[in-house]
Amino acid sequence: MDENMETPLRPIGVLHTSFHTASECPRQGSIAGHEGVAEIFSEYTAGLKDVEKFSHLWLIYKFHDTGPVELIVTPLLEGSTKRGLFATRHFRRPNPIGMTLVKILEITGNRVRFVGADMMNDTELLDIKPYVSEIDCPKESARSGWLEGVFRDKNRS
Amino acid sequence: MDENMETPLRPIGVLHTSFHTASECPRQGSIAGHEGVAEIFSEYTAGLKDVEKFSHLWLIYKFHDTGPVELIVTPLLEGSTKRGLFATRHFRRPNPIGMTLVKILEITGNRVRFVGADMMNDTELLDIKPYVSEIDCPKESARSGWLEGVFRDKNRS
Repeated sequence: MDENMETPLRPIGVLHTSFHTASECPRQGSIAGHEGVAEIFSEYTAGLKDVEKFSHLWLIYKFHDTGPVELIVTPLLEGSTKRGLFATRHFRRPNPIGMTLVKILEITGNRVRFVGADMMNDTELLDIKPYVSEIDCPKESARSGWLEGVFRDKNRS
Repeated sequence: MDENMETPLRPIGVLHTSFHTASECPRQGSIAGHEGVAEIFSEYTAGLKDVEKFSHLWLIYKFHDTGPVELIVTPLLEGSTKRGLFATRHFRRPNPIGMTLVKILEITGNRVRFVGADMMNDTELLDIKPYVSEIDCPKESARSGWLEGVFRDKNRS
């Protein structure tokens, strides 16, 4: 394998949301409940067949902000504790790929209206995958590392 | 937004599994229970800090097979019914990005041993994200579209 080989990615559509800066984006999209629209470019619309039979989708997209990547970061969800990048969902990553679980509200032509938006308006959509609970949700209970305390505190307040 | 702008991706590591052809790969990694190892390149190892506190990870990787993309496909899990590409996890996609939920077994230096392998040996690793049940698992029950019948039949047999 050639470590220097680059894979080019191309958007298949664009995500319309109400967030115009990174700081406006909610940190937990599927909890915050904001609506958005995925607009699929016409050449890919045929691939949406059967998607309406699923309740939830993964949106795979390109993070807007491609600033300098740091391997130790201070997550926005927490105080000042530094964490390893791969233990966070921070948007500055070696490959700026984001993924968000969303719930389908309505599909009309090349537009998928969904709830769970947490990405910036005009984000480039790279892929849509169906959410399949049998493979995407652990059978056993999961430990969320340092995020367990964050969600516990949020539910309390 | 420029639809023709390409985003280059670079591997952050490599996935070692026991599958040497696409047809050997299990169709539901997290169910099949095969072990694999994610080897992170040395320049990214620092980002693994705190990952061991999570029980599960998302591996984001580049599909090996980059043959011609078709928007209507015949999924391998099912008979001969044709489905829209974005309603499937088929590996030939406009952007060849795969994602698999895995369970951590052990982290030693730059190597993450996991269970849930369903990708080919030598697959390029693009990202690691922590699995966070609060945002990655729907609160309400999910419908898995055409895949519901597939999993129901598998559980019966």
